[in-house]
Amino acid sequence: MHRDNRGKLSVQAKVQIRNANDLSLAYSPGVAEPCKEIHANVDKVYEYTAKGNLVAVVSDGTAVLGLGNIGPEAAMPVMEGKAVLFKDFAGVDAFPICIRHDDDPEKLIDAIQYLEPTFGGINLEDIAAPNCFIIEEKLQEKMNIPIFHDDQHGTAIVTLAGLFNALKLVDKSIDEIKVVANGAGAAGIAIIKLLMHLGVKDVIMCDTKGAIYEGREVGMNPIKEDIASMTNKHKVKGNLAECLVDADVFIGVSVAGAVTQEMVKSMKRDPIIFAMANPIPEIMPEEAKAAGARVVGTGRSDFPNQVNNVLAFPGIFRGALDVRATCINIEMKVAAAEAIANLLKQDELHDDYVIPSPFDSRVAPAVAKAVAVAAMETGVARIKVDPDEIERKTMLLSAIGK
Amino acid sequence: MHRDNRGKLSVQAKVQIRNANDLSLAYSPGVAEPCKEIHANVDKVYEYTAKGNLVAVVSDGTAVLGLGNIGPEAAMPVMEGKAVLFKDFAGVDAFPICIRHDDDPEKLIDAIQYLEPTFGGINLEDIAAPNCFIIEEKLQEKMNIPIFHDDQHGTAIVTLAGLFNALKLVDKSIDEIKVVANGAGAAGIAIIKLLMHLGVKDVIMCDTKGAIYEGREVGMNPIKEDIASMTNKHKVKGNLAECLVDADVFIGVSVAGAVTQEMVKSMKRDPIIFAMANPIPEIMPEEAKAAGARVVGTGRSDFPNQVNNVLAFPGIFRGALDVRATCINIEMKVAAAEAIANLLKQDELHDDYVIPSPFDSRVAPAVAKAVAVAAMETGVARIKVDPDEIERKTMLLSAIGK
Repeated sequence: MHRDNRGKLSVQAKVQIRNANDLSLAYSPGVAEPCKEIHANVDKVYEYTAKGNLVAVVSDGTAVLGLGNIGPEAAMPVMEGKAVLFKDFAGVDAFPICIRHDDDPEKLIDAIQYLEPTFGGINLEDIAAPNCFIIEEKLQEKMNIPIFHDDQHGTAIVTLAGLFNALKLVDKSIDEIKVVANGAGAAGIAIIKLLMHLGVKDVIMCDTKGAIYEGREVGMNPIKEDIASMTNKHKVKGNLAECLVDADVFIGVSVAGAVTQEMVKSMKRDPIIFAMANPIPEIMPEEAKAAGARVVGTGRSDFPNQVNNVLAFPGIFRGALDVRATCINIEMKVAAAEAIANLLKQDELHDDYVIPSPFDSRVAPAVAKAVAVAAMETGVARIKVDPDEIERKTMLLSAIGK
Repeated sequence: MHRDNRGKLSVQAKVQIRNANDLSLAYSPGVAEPCKEIHANVDKVYEYTAKGNLVAVVSDGTAVLGLGNIGPEAAMPVMEGKAVLFKDFAGVDAFPICIRHDDDPEKLIDAIQYLEPTFGGINLEDIAAPNCFIIEEKLQEKMNIPIFHDDQHGTAIVTLAGLFNALKLVDKSIDEIKVVANGAGAAGIAIIKLLMHLGVKDVIMCDTKGAIYEGREVGMNPIKEDIASMTNKHKVKGNLAECLVDADVFIGVSVAGAVTQEMVKSMKRDPIIFAMANPIPEIMPEEAKAAGARVVGTGRSDFPNQVNNVLAFPGIFRGALDVRATCINIEMKVAAAEAIANLLKQDELHDDYVIPSPFDSRVAPAVAKAVAVAAMETGVARIKVDPDEIERKTMLLSAIGK
């Protein structure tokens, strides 16, 4: 598929040039008119060019899927694939940009900043931690368009959606649960931050050295210091097994086999397990269930409750672009998670159905609408748009994509 | 047209994602296979991704059409239009990238270099002189893909094609003519350099201060110093009128009205005039003709002999991409000019027809073939391809574009 098509994307002209008249309208001298309009008022770039529907899918190829640091060229097929999903699921024109920066994150920041006049948003992808955190934060400070690192927030948002529904099933409220996360990479950190924002009080994050706590001396970095200061209030110092005792929720973004049946048995009643290591989960769903787990989600399409980012990013950018949001703030992320969760009505919900299918055509329109509303309510939207209009448009665009 | 379409470009998916199987092929986990192939051999990026057919149309918006320094956002409609022409005339997937660099050309060089993993070629556009010369040269030194500043070379190549045919009509050989150019901007300099390369011995270049000569003290810069050292062997110091006496050819890339009928009358027999100031030429064709000019070309579609870059750049990039050329060298440029000129057979040629129409469908295929052959002959092609195959493919692609 990748080779026969010579890649998965092409650039399409929306206008045809058949004669001198077409040429003089689309190019010189006719094109001078929109140029002058934009020069007089730079916001008109959203009316006269593709910018308002254009997202750059940017990677440096340092953390590609499970393949690691394979370089910018080898990351291209993934970024093209991502761009295809943007288009097919929400009609967003996404374009892959793979950048070589020779291990200097400042260069990647520069490279992306230069793209601001062209694009309406930036989707960061497959950039290794901890660089990804610094890059995203600095870019969002410097740029006036949304910057969104999907490996962090896409995964976090869909996990959160699944967790919202799982908690309904087990009848626990979010402020009383104990959550243990394993894996302090991009997704793990983002999930923890979202959970803390939503009022989860008891969180422990583990990495390969066990629990992260304030004062730990091995394997720390500024991001983990930050996590240590926010989480693990009892300063638990043990390994994952020790941390998991009496936990309500396990969030795995680590490696195959990290969780045993014994560990699941040590958790509180109705354990909720998101075992998202790819391609082999931290514990296989059937094993987890046999050990008493109530709800199990994974990253895989062949098991129930797939945490698939495609549920989030197309609709999130659709909504953000449509109101010309200057960023994708935490309220917009939570709104997206709630929109995904709330698509499943109370009577549809069951242990094996807390997350909608990636092909549920209601998802992107609902997410786009919720994100646009949250952007307008939090004052980061530059224009006001009827949210129902955004939902209808997204429905149409995602139908065209299929 | 520009507003109703919200720009003139979209990104198109070549593959459709209708179900979990499509998703796992186009994205995770299936996409890992092409990634691994490229990681093992980076040249495979040309087989598995869109790179081999992707050209970035890059501008900083400092010299847009006749509008001047209007900034990167306001340049977007032009770059989109250019991308449309690339697609429609030669099936090249071109993507606009407009960059803000705050008057520091080094930043523009950096910004473009970062794009190398993604694109198969870079078309520079509407960048002010003298920055454009430095930027192009430095980028071509640093990058292994073709860098082509169309305002320089596109115009130069098409002018040269017209000149080749005009010289046939007046029966003069290129090494015996005296050429006077007015305007020391991007196009003027590039034309002079091409002419010198082809053996024109007597060239004078003028700017607003008159003839450029070695030792001139006002209004010089490193590029003009370079021109002074190569041209004007008699060190003529006068204004344009004085320089034009006994000239065979006038090349105007300057301003409306720069040339009078008196000046044309002072030239040698059968004057050849390329009066390419836009939108109003240095002298109107009917006036030039009345003063004795034999062949007159302009930049306008409503006069004969239009010097239109669209005759050159789509075919040039088509040919360069198809053999994976590492640059577009001077031999490839001359080959493009010859291919354009030679499309008009001796018995078709006449004073008002020395340049083919932009809509002559033979042009891009002939240029692509000639450029590919020149690249292979000069050792800058990374793969060998049957030139007739390139011609046929371009014919098909440009037919699809219309």
